[in-house]
Order: sequence, then C-alpha cells, then structure tokens
Amino acid sequence: MGLELYLDLMSQPCRAVYIFAKKNGIPFQLRTVELLKGQHYTDSFGQVNPLRKVPALKDGDFTLAESVAILLYLSRKYKTPDHWYPQDLQARARVDEYLSWQHTTLRSCCSRAMWQKMLFPVFLGQPVPPEILAATLAELDRCLQLLEDKFLRNQAFLTGSHISVADLVAITELMHPVSAGCQVFECRPKLAAWRQRVESAVGEDLFQEAHAVILKAKDIPPADPALKEKLRQSLKGLLQ
Amino acid sequence: MGLELYLDLMSQPCRAVYIFAKKNGIPFQLRTVELLKGQHYTDSFGQVNPLRKVPALKDGDFTLAESVAILLYLSRKYKTPDHWYPQDLQARARVDEYLSWQHTTLRSCCSRAMWQKMLFPVFLGQPVPPEILAATLAELDRCLQLLEDKFLRNQAFLTGSHISVADLVAITELMHPVSAGCQVFECRPKLAAWRQRVESAVGEDLFQEAHAVILKAKDIPPADPALKEKLRQSLKGLLQ
Ligand SMILES: N[C@@H](CCC(=O)N[C@@H](CS)C(=O)NCC(=O)O)C(=O)O
Ligand SMILES: N[C@@H](CCC(=O)N[C@@H](CS)C(=O)NCC(=O)O)C(=O)O
Repeated sequence: MGLELYLDLMSQPCRAVYIFAKKNGIPFQLRTVELLKGQHYTDSFGQVNPLRKVPALKDGDFTLAESVAILLYLSRKYKTPDHWYPQDLQARARVDEYLSWQHTTLRSCCSRAMWQKMLFPVFLGQPVPPEILAATLAELDRCLQLLEDKFLRNQAFLTGSHISVADLVAITELMHPVSAGCQVFECRPKLAAWRQRVESAVGEDLFQEAHAVILKAKDIPPADPALKEKLRQSLKGLLQ
Repeated sequence: MGLELYLDLMSQPCRAVYIFAKKNGIPFQLRTVELLKGQHYTDSFGQVNPLRKVPALKDGDFTLAESVAILLYLSRKYKTPDHWYPQDLQARARVDEYLSWQHTTLRSCCSRAMWQKMLFPVFLGQPVPPEILAATLAELDRCLQLLEDKFLRNQAFLTGSHISVADLVAITELMHPVSAGCQVFECRPKLAAWRQRVESAVGEDLFQEAHAVILKAKDIPPADPALKEKLRQSLKGLLQ
C-alpha cells in the first residue's frame, strides 16, 4: 500500500497538507476522517494516530502525526522544489521559525475565532458571551499584526521571496476565521496582497478545492441532532 | 561578532538550547536576559527578537527566535553528531513529530503547573484555587501518559535508541514542574529510567549546571517588592 493521507478538509492543517501534496503531484490515497462525525475515534484510525488528530500519514508500515512533520517528510521523500523548504541554512531557519511560532499563536486564536463565530452560534445555536468573543478577536488582531511585522515585512512571502510551507500553513489557518465571517484581510492591504500571491502560486482551482468545505460550512450547519449533541460535548470547556 | 545566545535558564526552552550548545562544544557568547526583571522589554533585546521571548540567537547579522528553529540551525551549522537530528527520513520525521507535538501539550501544561505551584503561591504569596490546580495537574498527567505511550514506548530515548533534540526539549520541560515540587517521575518508572539515560548522555555536571537556577528557585523567591509587582502584572490572566 502506497502513501495514505488521513484528512478532514474542515481542519486547517489538513488543508495545508492536502494543497502541498496535490500541488507537488505526490500520489496518495485520500482517507477522509470526518471529525464532526467522530470518525477519529474509530479503532482503525487509532492504529494510524493514537493521538486521534488529523492530519495523519501512513506510508507502508510507517505512520506519522503532526502537520509540520508530515509536510517536511513529504518534502524530503518526494524531493519537492527547494523553495518549499530551502536547503540554505538561514532561509530554512526562517521557515522553521514560523512553523514553530504558529502553534501557540495564530493557530490557537484562529481556531478559537472559528469556534466562537461559527461552531457555537451557527452550528449549535448557542450564543457566545460578547466579551469572550471580543477577547478572541483582539488576540487574533495581535497575532495578525505580528504576522505582518515580524514575518511578512516587505517580502513577497512569509519567509522570503518564494512560497514555502510556512505560507501554506499560514493561509490555511487564516481561512478558518474568514470562513466564519471574521474580517481578516479587509483592513490589511499587505496581508491581502500576500494572500493573492499565495493563491496564485498554489493555483486558484486547487485553493478553492481545498477550501470548498470550510467556506460553505456556515451556510449548511449540521442538522442531525445526535451529531449536534456530540459536537456540544466535545466543545464543552472551550468557552473560556 | 560570533554566535550570541540570549537565554534565561529559568526558561525551559533556553535550557534545551544551552545544553545542546555546551554539549556540542559550540562556541557562543551567553547574553543573559532576566525575564523576572523584564529585561526582554529593553530596546536592545527588541532588536534581536521583536517577539520579546527567549531563547533568541544572533549570529553576525542574522537573528532567530524559537527554540526549535534555533536547535535545528545549530545542528546544521555546526554539523553536530547525526543522532541529535538524524538524516534518516523516518528517524528525522519522528523527531519533527515530537518537536511539533509538544508546543500545545507538554509545554503548556508544564508551564501552567510551574506558575500555579510556584510563581503564584511561593513567589507572590497568592494562593491558587485548588480546583484550578487540580485541573492543571490532571492535564499534566494526561500529557505524561501520551509521552510514555505514544513517544517513549519501549525505546531508550523518545524517538529511538539514541538521544535526540526531542529528549532535550522534553527533559528541560519536565524539570519545570519538578522544580515546583510536582511528582513527575515518582510513579512512572519508565519515564524515570529515561530521565536517567538522558542525564547520563548529557553528563551530570552539565545537566545540573543548566538546572541549578530553576531547582533552587522555590527556596529563594524574589524579595524586591517592585519586581514582585511587575511579576503580578505579567501573570494576570493566567489563573484561568
Ligand atoms: N499540532 C497538530 C494539531 C492537529 C489537530 O489539532 N487537529 C484537529 C483538527 S484541526 C483534530 O484532529 N481535532 C480532533 C480532536 O481534537 O478531537 C497538527 O498540526 O497536526
Ligand atoms: N515557542 C517559543 C516560546 C518561547 C517562550 O515562550 N519563552 C518564554 C520563557 S519560557 C518567554 O520568553 N516569556 C516572556 C514573555 O512571554 O513575556 C520557543 O520555544 O522558543
């Protein structure tokens, strides 16, 4: 059995892995794991990733979790063009720096913004206290500012003049609050221009394909009451 | 000017960078940045790391933040022995997987455990509500279990039979709650044996040197009232 990628395109790191694999013509079997349906709790998925998160990779007997590790594994195994993860010492360090930084910053506030603007109010009909939402959006704003000032600066892409895996990880992240109706690019012309460059580099069709599910999620919330109850349980504790 | 490392050994990722550089005989100037004294807010440090966090690296004109990026940069630039960050595709992916996983799991609960068992009650004389501390310790326990079951398993080290940067990142993390008096290794013989192997591989003297400050922190809390007030301000909001 060749390469298998376990993904749910509702998940931002899964979209980064999906775009990277498709864009580089890496042959893989897509194994869809629908988080909303709890499919990450099946025994068979537990064999692939005991952490029970997507994305996950299986390549013969070898299994791997964590989007960053998966992106780097694919870049090495399939010898993708250098710009994705440059050999140059300093250029590579810039990519590593972004990949490391985002976990506890952009990642966490984009996720929270999506839960609080979409999952709770639209999917579950459960309003979010305005002061909690305001704190999340303020934190998102602070992270976007760092993204511009510390990473993008006056470059074409986040870590230099060519697109790298850092840009994929960042754009798929930012589309999370965008899908929930947050204004991410509206008052940020530099970030908006960067987004256009990333979309062009990836290709419009692939970008749209990867984001189709999340971008229409707001308009078709799940209807099944059992599924909503499961979601309610799994989101408990997130409104803090 | 050669390599400069901006560190505070009170910080767990700084200890990992310090041990790695010393153990590999990498020549560097130590620039101490005392977080408790707010030295990360000086203009000169802002030039090195606008994110205002330690560790940070300066190598000639090149500056770099994020401990993981710094460790990998040093391993590449100084061609450290392969086991630290193996060339082998799958072995390297295992290290990347751990380095990626720890940010939002072990890192966050070890930090919280240290604040809640040491900084608040001992440094500031401010008790922490028992249910908050209990939740933090339960989360720490869950993370330690994953560390054993998913990473260490029956191996000598976290990612295989040799020590890697993953082990350094993990051990320096775990010494944080240990320094605050948490029982991390007491009921976990497998983790305790791993700790011994890591200490031996690093060398007892270097291990003790890197941990001297944090291990005696509990017994000599800061006395300066202005400093305590600053600490109180910067910790506000963390008791949630
Ligand atoms: N650090 C991991 C995070 C993976 C992660 O949190 N995945 C989420 C979806 S975005 C997930 O699988 N959540 C399911 C759950 O936590 O129950 C990565 O970058 O791959
Ligand atoms: N992800 C970063 C985290 C760095 C970090 O949070 N450093 C802390 C000390 S452990 C710090 O400098 N805190 C100062 C502050 O946040 O004000 C890394 O691994 O280097």
